[in-house]
Amino acid sequence: MHSPPTMSIRNIIDALRGETGFIYTAKARELSKKGFKVINFGVGQPDFPTPKHIVEEAKNALDKGFTGYTDVAGIPELRQAIADYLNERYNSDVKADEVIVTPGAKAALFLAFAAYVKPGDEVIIPDPSYYMYPEITKFLGGKPVYVPLKWMGGDKGFELDLNSIENSITSRTRAIVVNNPHNPTGAVFSQREMSKLLEIAMERNILVIVDEIYDNFVYDGDFKSFISFNNWRDYVVYANGFSKTFSMTGWRLGYLVVRKEVASKLTKLAVNIWTCATSFVQKAGVKALKNSWDSVREMIETFKRRRDVMVNELRKVSGVEVFKSKGTFYVYPNIEKVLKKMGIDVETFANRLLDEKHVVVLPGTLFSETELGKTFIRLSFALGEELIAEGIKRLREFVERL
Amino acid sequence: MHSPPTMSIRNIIDALRGETGFIYTAKARELSKKGFKVINFGVGQPDFPTPKHIVEEAKNALDKGFTGYTDVAGIPELRQAIADYLNERYNSDVKADEVIVTPGAKAALFLAFAAYVKPGDEVIIPDPSYYMYPEITKFLGGKPVYVPLKWMGGDKGFELDLNSIENSITSRTRAIVVNNPHNPTGAVFSQREMSKLLEIAMERNILVIVDEIYDNFVYDGDFKSFISFNNWRDYVVYANGFSKTFSMTGWRLGYLVVRKEVASKLTKLAVNIWTCATSFVQKAGVKALKNSWDSVREMIETFKRRRDVMVNELRKVSGVEVFKSKGTFYVYPNIEKVLKKMGIDVETFANRLLDEKHVVVLPGTLFSETELGKTFIRLSFALGEELIAEGIKRLREFVERL
Repeated sequence: MHSPPTMSIRNIIDALRGETGFIYTAKARELSKKGFKVINFGVGQPDFPTPKHIVEEAKNALDKGFTGYTDVAGIPELRQAIADYLNERYNSDVKADEVIVTPGAKAALFLAFAAYVKPGDEVIIPDPSYYMYPEITKFLGGKPVYVPLKWMGGDKGFELDLNSIENSITSRTRAIVVNNPHNPTGAVFSQREMSKLLEIAMERNILVIVDEIYDNFVYDGDFKSFISFNNWRDYVVYANGFSKTFSMTGWRLGYLVVRKEVASKLTKLAVNIWTCATSFVQKAGVKALKNSWDSVREMIETFKRRRDVMVNELRKVSGVEVFKSKGTFYVYPNIEKVLKKMGIDVETFANRLLDEKHVVVLPGTLFSETELGKTFIRLSFALGEELIAEGIKRLREFVERL
Repeated sequence: MHSPPTMSIRNIIDALRGETGFIYTAKARELSKKGFKVINFGVGQPDFPTPKHIVEEAKNALDKGFTGYTDVAGIPELRQAIADYLNERYNSDVKADEVIVTPGAKAALFLAFAAYVKPGDEVIIPDPSYYMYPEITKFLGGKPVYVPLKWMGGDKGFELDLNSIENSITSRTRAIVVNNPHNPTGAVFSQREMSKLLEIAMERNILVIVDEIYDNFVYDGDFKSFISFNNWRDYVVYANGFSKTFSMTGWRLGYLVVRKEVASKLTKLAVNIWTCATSFVQKAGVKALKNSWDSVREMIETFKRRRDVMVNELRKVSGVEVFKSKGTFYVYPNIEKVLKKMGIDVETFANRLLDEKHVVVLPGTLFSETELGKTFIRLSFALGEELIAEGIKRLREFVERL
């Protein structure tokens, strides 16, 4: 007797990793229900409401009945507004017809991977990384090739290991993924690293898939976008979105920038999967790009103070080595000494910290397939300074009690 | 010298068909701009605004700041509301954890295909069909196997050719796609056809991928849902959505129903592509299911009158054989005699009708890979009765002038 056909899903679907932090946030929810005051450093979205003028624009569009299908690539004024924004900010030359509006930045990245990665292709992914890059690579039949970042210690943090990246290139290598600012490490890669990476891509004729979703969360020093290189069109496919910058995570609005010959073809994939991004959300997106920069700057100032609190407090914990993140809203401390002293692995650490102190941190193993995950934890500072101080205090008690 | 890596997209992306009617609607837009009064029978969405109480619910959710990420599978109250609705309506036993909320019904279908269709698999698609079924099959490396519907003439319309379907099954056959009510033909398949199809699926251990997006657009006789069979869980993956029933096309809200063992795994694919459907849109979806049925009934009555006008007017055109659609908002007349008399093919017919009479109809070749496309055209009756009458009058002039 056969098993029924609905039961036999493909192996690749069976093997996919989903929301990596889910078991921790689910456990946190359970603890909250029981009345415990959980401090959640696992969050992946700003804790600010979407700015009011953006909300009002969506409501206006709804009232005006702007509720039908839009062009697959997005409404023309949003595509133009995105191009204008990128060009002004990054001194680039993006045209409106090189922009595809998508239901979130992940959907944009999905289009990028789907356009180029075929079964058997290798995709170089600096490790640790955001989970969707390897998972979508695998879904498409490709093979993720992890190249660890270089851990330079608490002062310098993480750097791209350009030699290893170069040495990992084979005849099957199709693309290198660069997430900058970098989740989970908080690194912002330098101009030198980026130029060199692009040089490698040019020499070896390899694509660079770029995710700059945290580009407004930069606290120290300059940020150079991959879209600002003169020859980006030949080597770069670029994804970004509205979720983080404008606190619009639930709205689902992102975009892909890719040379127009490809953009026009990718809309044919988009129309077969999601048709278009939500119509009135796109109208709100235009407003967001044009009128939000004061509130964004204010939010970033707040995040900078939070980062400072978190890093300062973490540096008081013995055995914790922490880099002061230059970007994103995460820190990724090395707790190797703590784990050694406690005689536990990083997952046990995260689980016990949650059980005993009701603090959620995510073990590096959720972001890493290499050794770099085993001694690091990720903490989000997308919560108030007092909660951050209290959470790190609990972590310190947990660590130093022993 | 290599071509730059951004230029070398995968062959499958190059070969995809996108919005099939795009060239006609684009030309119609050009003609409108020049001042011509174009009548567009190419539209694929109701011309009614989204009911006000649904709009208000979205605005409320926005005002309350319901703008963050939701559960990947959707907010619990929407999953429950969908299950309740299906169970009440179709006497089924769907559980909330068997529902995955998606950004549109196409996204739901994409999950269904992605879960089961692997490279080399064959998918049986009754022809003509909606374009996304074969395109997503090909994107996943599968092979569409077209089985023509049986054209029974203007009185009976189209039927499933169950013998041919059965004879098309090979060891590689993974799934049969059923769209019911059927776009573009307006057929509503009978209980007998459906039972027999399910029997075939059971005997041969084959999946049935079901798209019932037009299930509220049924004008004559009963409609039986595939979700109402006792053993649906073993054989059926079911997609539906809010776009057509509640005039919410631009909102992007749909859902997949699949046994829970699979639903929980498919959320891992969903989170890697689109994370979740738009948060406040989901709240509006709950409201839509609970409070809209009077306005839906009213809309369907209007559509029924429009269908009658369209069919009556078309039947006056000599050489046109038209089935009175039982469902959807399309009619799919056979114009073989007209084409023979005029000595042109169906695409030339559509192009010249647009150029000379400013009326958009879509040639059957957009929906069909078999002979069934070559003598049929699709007309949408999602527009006012006067426009319908005027448009068919122009078509008649065009046809009978010669």
